[in-house]
Amino acid sequence: MSRKLRMGMIGGGRGAFIGGIHRMAAGIDGQIELVCGALHIDPEIAILSGQDLYLPQERTYKTYHEMFEKESQLPADVRMDFVSIVTPNHVHFEPAKLALENGFHVVCEKPISFSLDEALQLQKLVDETGLIFALTHTYTGYPMVKQAREMCRSGVFGKIRKIVVEYPQGWLSTPLEQTGQQQATWRTDPKRSGKAGSVGDIGTHAENLAETISGLKITELSADVSTFVENRLLDDDANVLLRFDNGAKGVLHCSQISAGEENPLNIRIYGEKGSIQWHQHDPNTMYVKWLDKPMEVYRTGSGYMDASAAAHTRTPAGHPEGYLEAFANIYQNFTKVVQAKLDGSEVEAVYNDFPTVEDGVRGMKFIDAVIASGQNNAAWTKME
Amino acid sequence: MSRKLRMGMIGGGRGAFIGGIHRMAAGIDGQIELVCGALHIDPEIAILSGQDLYLPQERTYKTYHEMFEKESQLPADVRMDFVSIVTPNHVHFEPAKLALENGFHVVCEKPISFSLDEALQLQKLVDETGLIFALTHTYTGYPMVKQAREMCRSGVFGKIRKIVVEYPQGWLSTPLEQTGQQQATWRTDPKRSGKAGSVGDIGTHAENLAETISGLKITELSADVSTFVENRLLDDDANVLLRFDNGAKGVLHCSQISAGEENPLNIRIYGEKGSIQWHQHDPNTMYVKWLDKPMEVYRTGSGYMDASAAAHTRTPAGHPEGYLEAFANIYQNFTKVVQAKLDGSEVEAVYNDFPTVEDGVRGMKFIDAVIASGQNNAAWTKME
Amino acid sequence: MSRKLRMGMIGGGRGAFIGGIHRMAAGIDGQIELVCGALHIDPEIAILSGQDLYLPQERTYKTYHEMFEKESQLPADVRMDFVSIVTPNHVHFEPAKLALENGFHVVCEKPISFSLDEALQLQKLVDETGLIFALTHTYTGYPMVKQAREMCRSGVFGKIRKIVVEYPQGWLSTPLEQTGQQQATWRTDPKRSGKAGSVGDIGTHAENLAETISGLKITELSADVSTFVENRLLDDDANVLLRFDNGAKGVLHCSQISAGEENPLNIRIYGEKGSIQWHQHDPNTMYVKWLDKPMEVYRTGSGYMDASAAAHTRTPAGHPEGYLEAFANIYQNFTKVVQAKLDGSEVEAVYNDFPTVEDGVRGMKFIDAVIASGQNNAAWTKME
Amino acid sequence: MSRKLRMGMIGGGRGAFIGGIHRMAAGIDGQIELVCGALHIDPEIAILSGQDLYLPQERTYKTYHEMFEKESQLPADVRMDFVSIVTPNHVHFEPAKLALENGFHVVCEKPISFSLDEALQLQKLVDETGLIFALTHTYTGYPMVKQAREMCRSGVFGKIRKIVVEYPQGWLSTPLEQTGQQQATWRTDPKRSGKAGSVGDIGTHAENLAETISGLKITELSADVSTFVENRLLDDDANVLLRFDNGAKGVLHCSQISAGEENPLNIRIYGEKGSIQWHQHDPNTMYVKWLDKPMEVYRTGSGYMDASAAAHTRTPAGHPEGYLEAFANIYQNFTKVVQAKLDGSEVEAVYNDFPTVEDGVRGMKFIDAVIASGQNNAAWTKME
Repeated sequence: MSRKLRMGMIGGGRGAFIGGIHRMAAGIDGQIELVCGALHIDPEIAILSGQDLYLPQERTYKTYHEMFEKESQLPADVRMDFVSIVTPNHVHFEPAKLALENGFHVVCEKPISFSLDEALQLQKLVDETGLIFALTHTYTGYPMVKQAREMCRSGVFGKIRKIVVEYPQGWLSTPLEQTGQQQATWRTDPKRSGKAGSVGDIGTHAENLAETISGLKITELSADVSTFVENRLLDDDANVLLRFDNGAKGVLHCSQISAGEENPLNIRIYGEKGSIQWHQHDPNTMYVKWLDKPMEVYRTGSGYMDASAAAHTRTPAGHPEGYLEAFANIYQNFTKVVQAKLDGSEVEAVYNDFPTVEDGVRGMKFIDAVIASGQNNAAWTKME
Repeated sequence: MSRKLRMGMIGGGRGAFIGGIHRMAAGIDGQIELVCGALHIDPEIAILSGQDLYLPQERTYKTYHEMFEKESQLPADVRMDFVSIVTPNHVHFEPAKLALENGFHVVCEKPISFSLDEALQLQKLVDETGLIFALTHTYTGYPMVKQAREMCRSGVFGKIRKIVVEYPQGWLSTPLEQTGQQQATWRTDPKRSGKAGSVGDIGTHAENLAETISGLKITELSADVSTFVENRLLDDDANVLLRFDNGAKGVLHCSQISAGEENPLNIRIYGEKGSIQWHQHDPNTMYVKWLDKPMEVYRTGSGYMDASAAAHTRTPAGHPEGYLEAFANIYQNFTKVVQAKLDGSEVEAVYNDFPTVEDGVRGMKFIDAVIASGQNNAAWTKME
Repeated sequence: MSRKLRMGMIGGGRGAFIGGIHRMAAGIDGQIELVCGALHIDPEIAILSGQDLYLPQERTYKTYHEMFEKESQLPADVRMDFVSIVTPNHVHFEPAKLALENGFHVVCEKPISFSLDEALQLQKLVDETGLIFALTHTYTGYPMVKQAREMCRSGVFGKIRKIVVEYPQGWLSTPLEQTGQQQATWRTDPKRSGKAGSVGDIGTHAENLAETISGLKITELSADVSTFVENRLLDDDANVLLRFDNGAKGVLHCSQISAGEENPLNIRIYGEKGSIQWHQHDPNTMYVKWLDKPMEVYRTGSGYMDASAAAHTRTPAGHPEGYLEAFANIYQNFTKVVQAKLDGSEVEAVYNDFPTVEDGVRGMKFIDAVIASGQNNAAWTKME
Repeated sequence: MSRKLRMGMIGGGRGAFIGGIHRMAAGIDGQIELVCGALHIDPEIAILSGQDLYLPQERTYKTYHEMFEKESQLPADVRMDFVSIVTPNHVHFEPAKLALENGFHVVCEKPISFSLDEALQLQKLVDETGLIFALTHTYTGYPMVKQAREMCRSGVFGKIRKIVVEYPQGWLSTPLEQTGQQQATWRTDPKRSGKAGSVGDIGTHAENLAETISGLKITELSADVSTFVENRLLDDDANVLLRFDNGAKGVLHCSQISAGEENPLNIRIYGEKGSIQWHQHDPNTMYVKWLDKPMEVYRTGSGYMDASAAAHTRTPAGHPEGYLEAFANIYQNFTKVVQAKLDGSEVEAVYNDFPTVEDGVRGMKFIDAVIASGQNNAAWTKME
């Protein structure tokens, strides 16, 4: 019989944003217990953050090095099963590497690492250790995205010809990083964010969504990459032409200076016989268009939904599920796979479904290709 | 310093729907721990259900009577703090009464009871004991509903003139109860549901939403109540004219035979100078209309939102929050009020905000008035 | 071979609103020529208005009495074929009567008359003369309304159970008539508008739409009729419960004090197996919902549309048609029927489709019933 | 005092599509009379088409050469004032040239000509003759597009940074031209359509819309141009990166193989402080987004609309205006300018507003640049 998993968290203390999201997502299904954490780079804040979360003092660590060391020494039925890494990009690789080397499964924020090289090292480690690694490309956690994926791959739309994926945000329209706002500061800092700004932060989500749903791979791209806000050190906008491995063409644009936009990740995939549109602001709805009959509107929770969507739906149709539930689906599936591993059982195929280290590597290749193309006046650049 | 609350659950075992919703809602914020339960009327299923939820065997009770008895004897730092009652309507009153009599706080499903008399008894008990009682009228838990309420009450729209609230569902368009479907069966059974079908199940949500947002009270109503599906024992549709205590007029209609509808609870409130529209299917959006300027679209998570809305929002604008988060807001606030009571501290006003036993009494009065009016050819009937 | 029809207009001169709409609607299809008019009650304005419209001076009449007299004396191949009556309600009956008595076909604004008695007299005259009479209930002119009607009547949704039709406007939220605004002034004046305000002006459109699409007749209704704006002489809001001749129930509400609303006439019709929703603000779209499959979105101009809709569509899908085209459809069909009469030919069935004097009589009965019910505290009142 | 203008039509006979649209658009406002035509390349069909339109036999010409010759000889108060050219692309230039050379004003379908050279010749002729030349880029005729233009140019959004304009259609997803369908056949035929397929047919609309609203000029572009349908001779899809003269960046994509899409021309323009979105399927609505306050929804016909929008609106808010009214706005303004010229008066500035020969030249430069870039693996190509 399975048991709750024990989670340790790296990052996510006071003042953080995404750490709280991870805890809520992990909490929804009652299968995960937060047991320890190295919650902040400042030891005092780390301790206060542990108290906020009702962690025992002795498992509120000052560094993740300490956490790995101490947790490794705890009895098997006490020590954490996995870590969630919710730090800025430059602090993904080392804790992930240490976790894997110390036998802990990993949930990691995206992009997976600071550089492609790091990502490839992690991929190798995951392969060698056989440990479970989940990357939180949240948007593919939505039930409707799974429905889209199943429909596209079933061939019902014929061969895919065109993909338009867009991710415009507006929150960096002004030099917000100069006000000290924490989320803006590290995301626009090449030392913490990596070589990409908006391209890494949200462009990778768009890339992941397009490849995940379509089942196609981007082979080459041409990117016009811009920084509109004065003195900003990283890109805040990119317009990208895409070519896919089956001959399909595409457009991807991402932006953090699209004034007034919230988070409207949007994708349209056109096949020979029909097409889909899915929009993250209304995630329980998908528009399915056909050559010669009325558009259909698919809705999460409906009886006609695919098994893959149904397995990631918690409420009946018309009871909106949102971002946290999509996030929770990654934790749900990661948990089921780890539980099955612990039990020596087989996880149901429908749950063996979350972004992995391979998605992380694709994301880093995407960043590399876009930035290289951008620096070369949008020259076509291979994504491999 | 506050601590996690310990929850016991009555109902919600295998095969149940709303119990799981309560557990997810209680789990999101990491402030509540499920410690015991009387999860099913069938003791064997109760035990299996406890195992599903990782409850210790000794706190997986066969009846709620046993649960109250045994939990009361546990040390103060072990025994449950409150119960969640997630049973069909006819099993709300007795466990709620026992809980209050035994010193436990209560979260209770709506409608609060089987009859108005029971509701009034509970109201009296809550007053006498000073215990905290939350009723899960989920929809008022949405941040945007709180925004609507604050705007309406601020007077920005002038005097309210008209309210249109509607709650059409389609899932009972066929005699589903004759197939043995569990949710349909008890909801259409007068012995378990009470004197009302759709009116109690969803009409009360509409009534609660209208009164909560507007701050007005329905004084009288005229209801055309129907049962469209043959051999159904309770109403499955009602069209109701409303009159409010400030002279406003209104329309409320609810239905479970509106074929093809999911759960589109929708409200429009018109004042002298402007109006709002909120739609549960798109809960993070509110349309604010004015006499002489462009409609504004309010969005959950935006910087301009009211403190009351902001306090019930977990993610930035554009990261959709849904039904479970609205539900969780009831648990969040209930928890904060109970924690404050335990600490002897004062809860922040913004969190002292959830449906109470008074809302429950209003709901039962609404049911009584609608059913009486319906039986009297839609004669005007006072709601008091 | 058919020829263009010659139109005379009564009302619609300088300062008028609906007359210009009629002229544009009549002009779209190139089948109608405006040849004369009695365009204003003030003879000087009438003359200036004739010049605006390039009418010859000798056919710019000072009164409609003069117009009927003079036109009757013109040669058959010169004189007008029909009149369009676009005056306020109290000046519908007499010119319509005179037109029919003098052998002219009639297009008349709604409501058809000032009183039910007048409507019945016109009905008798139309029957006796065999002349063509079209009433401009514009909204049933939309192609999508015709599609809705055909689908409802085909039985594809099973028996109709419930109809919700609503027509909220906000433009009379303030005492606009006290500013001298012409449209507001006559519509709120019982001497010109009749016994009803909003109920006659827009409630009749809602009634006509519901009966036209469903093919059902309202048998009785219960109406809560209000005047919210101080010193206004006629109703500006009504909430109405409906019962139909097949046992269906319904709600109709109309309002001109719904602050911020434009013209969102909206109808939902629920059958046993499915339902439709059509919304005048987005008139080329219809939502078709089913018990067990995805909602379909029908779109004007698409290949799958019914012959009846196709015959009233001028542009391909995605090229929005609007209010003027719906209006033009009434003129188109009226013209085709008159042309066929002139030719002695048979009009195609699909074009013999516009609101008639019978619709006008139903509208007056609706007004009578609603106002009577309203004066009697919403007592059930027969509509016959 | 002004008079109706007399229109001659070239093309638009039986079996044609856009000619009927022009006649309806010209008919709406009652300012234009169709007096003659050379309606079809086949003389017999030309004659039948003239009868359909009630043209006198002697002014139903067999060729446009005959039309220019004969009409020129008619008395000034009888002969046509202008021609509408509604033929396929390869028959725009010669009749336009002849019209101008013979002293007739011109309304011409887009793209203006078969080649850039022809467009430049027409531009020269227009300059020399002082005659009025309107190009029917319909979409800029919408009142809301004028509102958008005024707002963008007013600076209320700050400097424009990004433009996304898209025009996906699906009607050529299959080899429709191989079925003999007339619209598909000439549009995919390089001899009639020119060097571009979708790029000329709809891409130019997108280009015109972007430049018109923003007031910016595209300086260079990078285009990935595709033909997805086998054996098709012209492009059916293009994805284009844009750079504007103020430093703004953009994306334009157009397609006729986007299966299931109707005609959803859509534009988003982002400035430093806010942005707009306008969508042709819902043309009376514009979304205006801001950095720090709720999105506003502008609606055609509302009191707050700009004078420029108001002058092109025929109905009150909530009475949808559509494609034909947008089209009619071009005819309205063309007419007013010609009437003013005839009268020797000055036209009001607000009406001196329609696409001209300059827009036609820009369109041809766009086609040239996109096709050249496409043939050169999307190399950056100047648009001048």
